Amino acid sequence: MWPDRKLTQLLGIEHPIIQAPMAGATNPVIVAAVSNAGGLGSFGAAGTPPKKLRETVWAIQERTSKPFNINLFAAHTEDFDRNARPGPRLAEQLTAYHAEFGLGDVPVPGPMFGPFDEQLDVLIEEKVPVISFHFGADVAAVERAHADGAKVLCSATTVDEAKTLEQAGVDAVIAQGGEAGGHRGTFSIDYERALIGTMALVPQVVDAVSVPVIAAGGIMDARGIVASLALGASGVQMGTAFLGCVEMSVLDAWRSSLGSAAAEDTKITKAVSGRPARAIRNRYIEEVEALGEQLLPYPAQYSVSRDLRKSAAERDDSGFMSMWAGQGVGLIRNQPVDEFMREIIESSQKLLGQLGSS
Amino acid sequence: MWPDRKLTQLLGIEHPIIQAPMAGATNPVIVAAVSNAGGLGSFGAAGTPPKKLRETVWAIQERTSKPFNINLFAAHTEDFDRNARPGPRLAEQLTAYHAEFGLGDVPVPGPMFGPFDEQLDVLIEEKVPVISFHFGADVAAVERAHADGAKVLCSATTVDEAKTLEQAGVDAVIAQGGEAGGHRGTFSIDYERALIGTMALVPQVVDAVSVPVIAAGGIMDARGIVASLALGASGVQMGTAFLGCVEMSVLDAWRSSLGSAAAEDTKITKAVSGRPARAIRNRYIEEVEALGEQLLPYPAQYSVSRDLRKSAAERDDSGFMSMWAGQGVGLIRNQPVDEFMREIIESSQKLLGQLGSS
Repeated sequence: MWPDRKLTQLLGIEHPIIQAPMAGATNPVIVAAVSNAGGLGSFGAAGTPPKKLRETVWAIQERTSKPFNINLFAAHTEDFDRNARPGPRLAEQLTAYHAEFGLGDVPVPGPMFGPFDEQLDVLIEEKVPVISFHFGADVAAVERAHADGAKVLCSATTVDEAKTLEQAGVDAVIAQGGEAGGHRGTFSIDYERALIGTMALVPQVVDAVSVPVIAAGGIMDARGIVASLALGASGVQMGTAFLGCVEMSVLDAWRSSLGSAAAEDTKITKAVSGRPARAIRNRYIEEVEALGEQLLPYPAQYSVSRDLRKSAAERDDSGFMSMWAGQGVGLIRNQPVDEFMREIIESSQKLLGQLGSS
Repeated sequence: MWPDRKLTQLLGIEHPIIQAPMAGATNPVIVAAVSNAGGLGSFGAAGTPPKKLRETVWAIQERTSKPFNINLFAAHTEDFDRNARPGPRLAEQLTAYHAEFGLGDVPVPGPMFGPFDEQLDVLIEEKVPVISFHFGADVAAVERAHADGAKVLCSATTVDEAKTLEQAGVDAVIAQGGEAGGHRGTFSIDYERALIGTMALVPQVVDAVSVPVIAAGGIMDARGIVASLALGASGVQMGTAFLGCVEMSVLDAWRSSLGSAAAEDTKITKAVSGRPARAIRNRYIEEVEALGEQLLPYPAQYSVSRDLRKSAAERDDSGFMSMWAGQGVGLIRNQPVDEFMREIIESSQKLLGQLGSS
């Protein structure tokens, strides 16, 4: 049915399609639905405290007996300068926003996520079948996951990063092309150097590592799936495409922006979290970038802008949400996840047949 | 043999493979060889004066009776501020370079290419079968080419640009993804917004226009060709991959850099010509960008750095050449063009069969 069984056999799934673990947008319903449809559902747990994470895993396990994936941001992201403070222009801008929306004081920079070790404990204790990391994978974490039988995935944005991950013991590498929405997984060099398009990145990674390669970035439908397989990938990870599914936790204003945005309406910005991530441009991103001032490191920038996002969610204001989206956004469709999965699988099979019969 | 015959029928060629018209690197031998092998050879004529251009066309026609393509930079690129002068830091840097390499005065900004109208006259008079434009296509030029039976291609870097080109009457649109080497074809918005990866760009363009779409950017071998066809493209344009062919006019130091560069060693820069173009980083690019000063508009920047490139070619100094390359550079192979064409065609057929029989 699929030309390459390496990834499906590794993960124990039927179709080589991974729904990307978009923290904040994923929930047990969507994760279980994707896994029940034969793909790999993923929950983005970076911002989920350990107790809540355990409940989330239970909620997924209640809904599916199939393999699923939980994603964590790498442990090293917990290390940052706790004394970092916004520069004068950012401080003034944030204060003005808080006044505009009737919020209290601007939060002091602090940790947003984790603690990583406790999150990983939960995943191992609850026998989560697949664990993925973003921003790199350290050997100790990979070994802990492996010791209890979990499979480990991690994103690479260059050939060198893919080799590093293979050496760290990951079971498959996600080659994240520059088209991808959300946080760049880059962990070794300046992110601008590592903005390599999926078409160029995937075959170079495939040639460099012996573990299965998962293509990510700009893959929106059967055409992207089959193209990725042609490039030598053993499967795909799709994020933006799944944001269109009605079961996703996507706020109305974000969903509306997804429906009208073109590729050039997205941009990579550090304004939200301090790390580069691709989102639909909005007032917050444009104005904060226009300050022309060094922003705070991750996750300090994330924490000082936290109340603005919370308030934006309450007001359904697209100007201050983190509207993550990849460059494939123009192909997004709103449909139930079961229907979406069935359609991309059937269309992929049909397209494979058409290409082969030419 | 190929799943989509729209492009091959349009252009009268056997295989939907276009060798990109890289000005400076292409020559009659490579163009004719690609066309004789059933693809579409292309000569980049932007910098070729009309008399020399006519001789070049004759030289190609002597070597092949098959269709071939000549590329021009759009007429509007001749319009620029003739009074533009380098800022103080750029002026000082250029003067220092000229002293270092024993050159005379830094050239005054001036026109580099054209005249466009006379170049187009030559192509029409000599019955060039395919004419392609970069940086947009104006309706008058398209109509002149069509009146004498030529087919017209032009690059788009966004969906909107593809629609504009279709309205201007082009016969096929080249969807140039952000991976591509050389000059960005962007003609409607800031180039950074139009750095859309091939995987995301191609299917969105395919859905938006009814003319055949040619995928470009990061396509290096059969995997990229078949992936592009899966995305809905009717054919591909490959540049960097052909730079590896031994018949290409590629200086030794450039060829050597191509052989050792990784994707992240390329970058998009305005330092060479004043327009954004992807090249392998070198001393000139790094140092001129580090000036942090507004550079000259195209083609003024090109002309003031002209003598440095000429001198670099004589010294075979990679530090001052324009080493154009795309993000697929890590997959480059050095082989004769006949062998390269045979191999990518055979491998594409094999891969199509493998995908179809799964």
